[in-house]
Amino acid sequence: MESVAVIGASMTQFGQRDAWIRELLAEAGQACLDDAGVSPDAIDHLYVSNMASGEFEGQTGVPNALAHDLSALPAYTARIDQTSSSGGAGIYAAWQSVASGASEMTLLVGGEKMTHRSTSEATDVIASLTHPVEYKHGVTLPSFAGLTARLYLDEYDAPRESLGKVAVKNHRNGVDNPHAQFRKEVDLDTVLESPLVADPLRLYDFCPITDGSAALMFCPESVAREYADEYVVVSGIGGATDTHVVHERADPTTMGGVVHSSEQAYEMADVDPDDVDVAELHDMFTILEFLQSEDLGFFEKGEGWKAVEEGVTDRDGALPINTSGGLKSKGHPLGASGVAQAYEIYAQLMGEAGARQVEAETGLACNVGGFGNCVTTTVMEARR
Amino acid sequence: MESVAVIGASMTQFGQRDAWIRELLAEAGQACLDDAGVSPDAIDHLYVSNMASGEFEGQTGVPNALAHDLSALPAYTARIDQTSSSGGAGIYAAWQSVASGASEMTLLVGGEKMTHRSTSEATDVIASLTHPVEYKHGVTLPSFAGLTARLYLDEYDAPRESLGKVAVKNHRNGVDNPHAQFRKEVDLDTVLESPLVADPLRLYDFCPITDGSAALMFCPESVAREYADEYVVVSGIGGATDTHVVHERADPTTMGGVVHSSEQAYEMADVDPDDVDVAELHDMFTILEFLQSEDLGFFEKGEGWKAVEEGVTDRDGALPINTSGGLKSKGHPLGASGVAQAYEIYAQLMGEAGARQVEAETGLACNVGGFGNCVTTTVMEARR
Repeated sequence: MESVAVIGASMTQFGQRDAWIRELLAEAGQACLDDAGVSPDAIDHLYVSNMASGEFEGQTGVPNALAHDLSALPAYTARIDQTSSSGGAGIYAAWQSVASGASEMTLLVGGEKMTHRSTSEATDVIASLTHPVEYKHGVTLPSFAGLTARLYLDEYDAPRESLGKVAVKNHRNGVDNPHAQFRKEVDLDTVLESPLVADPLRLYDFCPITDGSAALMFCPESVAREYADEYVVVSGIGGATDTHVVHERADPTTMGGVVHSSEQAYEMADVDPDDVDVAELHDMFTILEFLQSEDLGFFEKGEGWKAVEEGVTDRDGALPINTSGGLKSKGHPLGASGVAQAYEIYAQLMGEAGARQVEAETGLACNVGGFGNCVTTTVMEARR
Repeated sequence: MESVAVIGASMTQFGQRDAWIRELLAEAGQACLDDAGVSPDAIDHLYVSNMASGEFEGQTGVPNALAHDLSALPAYTARIDQTSSSGGAGIYAAWQSVASGASEMTLLVGGEKMTHRSTSEATDVIASLTHPVEYKHGVTLPSFAGLTARLYLDEYDAPRESLGKVAVKNHRNGVDNPHAQFRKEVDLDTVLESPLVADPLRLYDFCPITDGSAALMFCPESVAREYADEYVVVSGIGGATDTHVVHERADPTTMGGVVHSSEQAYEMADVDPDDVDVAELHDMFTILEFLQSEDLGFFEKGEGWKAVEEGVTDRDGALPINTSGGLKSKGHPLGASGVAQAYEIYAQLMGEAGARQVEAETGLACNVGGFGNCVTTTVMEARR
């Protein structure tokens, strides 16, 4: 198996963008080519992580258009969709293309254009991934988040405030991320007094609807050395599912897909959770940061909330989580999010994270589709 | 690089089906598990080739639902979309998952549910892959086919009848395919007198709109030997694009994606076009069978039509093409078609093709998206 390196990364401004999906993808793709110092004709595989350009814009075949726009023809192209974890699935596809020997230079671009549709139209597209019977009864993703948050608080005797502190922390980090949709601090009272969405979760427990794109350049480690003295390797990666029929799960506070995908990633990388210096988790809802931080093995079951209370996951804590601002403040353009998580880890490992910089040699990104329906976990390490 | 084997294959009845995408995928998936003699809990990767379940049915996240329905949780899942060549792209994804060492057992299921929508709704979904400016001027895929057919006939002094003979041949083959949408012979007069669609092409020069699904089981060759004495290997595979702005192509009668993807596949398999004993080509329009048969190197440029006239591509000819009946008579459920092509090659190489059986040790499948926008070519060989 080829060792797979990342030699460049980029992300566009996230937020409400006056650009179509094709333009957003080209913007991140070109920036990544520039960052990696790679000529478009060196690209042999080009993957696009995107959930729903057809539903959002009536435009399909976007990878082909992107190959044209980046002058990357005749590179092989395909679209990878795994709903809100399409970005992580794209990373796995890109990793496989290089690790299998099929590609010497793979560009992955993830993106989504959503804000031109109304909030209810956009959430309807997302809700199309849920189980039809649950959907019919109104149990969409935010509802599951509310129900699970209630169960978690009760089961582990956690205060409601601890959830709010996830939002406060991630907003604080987002202030220093020039690409973030929201660059403003919020205090705990603002979170706790924001409109109720799915009891006990309130507006500030949820990520926004966002336009944006992000990109990564992958190649064999032997090729990476021709381009750079310092780079990052994907030392471990894994993917797994849990049932999309959430009411059939034995314990909704455990995300089986996170457990299984991270076991694979740790084993491949030959690292333990303790070895991880910085992590980007899929905080689509605040409660998800607790669940993932436990299911990834960072903290004992039921203790993730304490880590946030105690500042362990702050930027100056023992394990900084969501230094980018997370989906919460950075925004969540579905197909882009998993790629943007890896962009942040890449920036941290390369010492390019500016005001957000932490000390890190090993980082982890966990991208979650649906309510943990499908998950990819990626371990990345600096090579200097 | 792991040598990748195929140890099972299946396809559902193609045609107008009273079943949703999720049911069609499960039907082919279960049949493939049975054919391969593989337990669902042995599957670690599960890919779904599908272009547009969201647009056609308002249902996304289908791979997750399939993992549930096949009892394959917590297998990793993702959807692979490359418009009408999603099936071929799924084969490439499955090949990469095994060749990279990420998977020991990958199930690929391709499918599409289309006939519940009107013909104009269905063709609108397909047309969403074309270039917006070309689309606005009415130059959709059938129009390109008509323009290119006219150019080809003129350039290479080919008779209009030769195109009709592709339809006659493929319908004749489809009679012996129990899964085909149309199992009836048509004579040349019927083709030539059918309603004009895009001059010079008529109704019988086009494939129909179809529901259906097909599946393949992939594993390392070392694992294949535990399951079967005889199996098939993917000895070569490649993928490439051409510009989706068709009017910018230097010569519309040459499909660059076919040329480049087949060069990769031949080189990996270490075979020449002459070594191919049986081939499935993407005859969405009759003219495409000529173009691919030339761009794959089976015949000289401008001579593909002569091969059909002379019976070379008949079932008892030197190089049988589309023994399955092709997209023309078998039908074209977008995400399924590339997988069903490989199903036919697998059946031929394993001696399981019944009344359609030809003598073959090496087969090739060429799956085309858009008007040659993206193409995958797969070379498969029998191992006994």
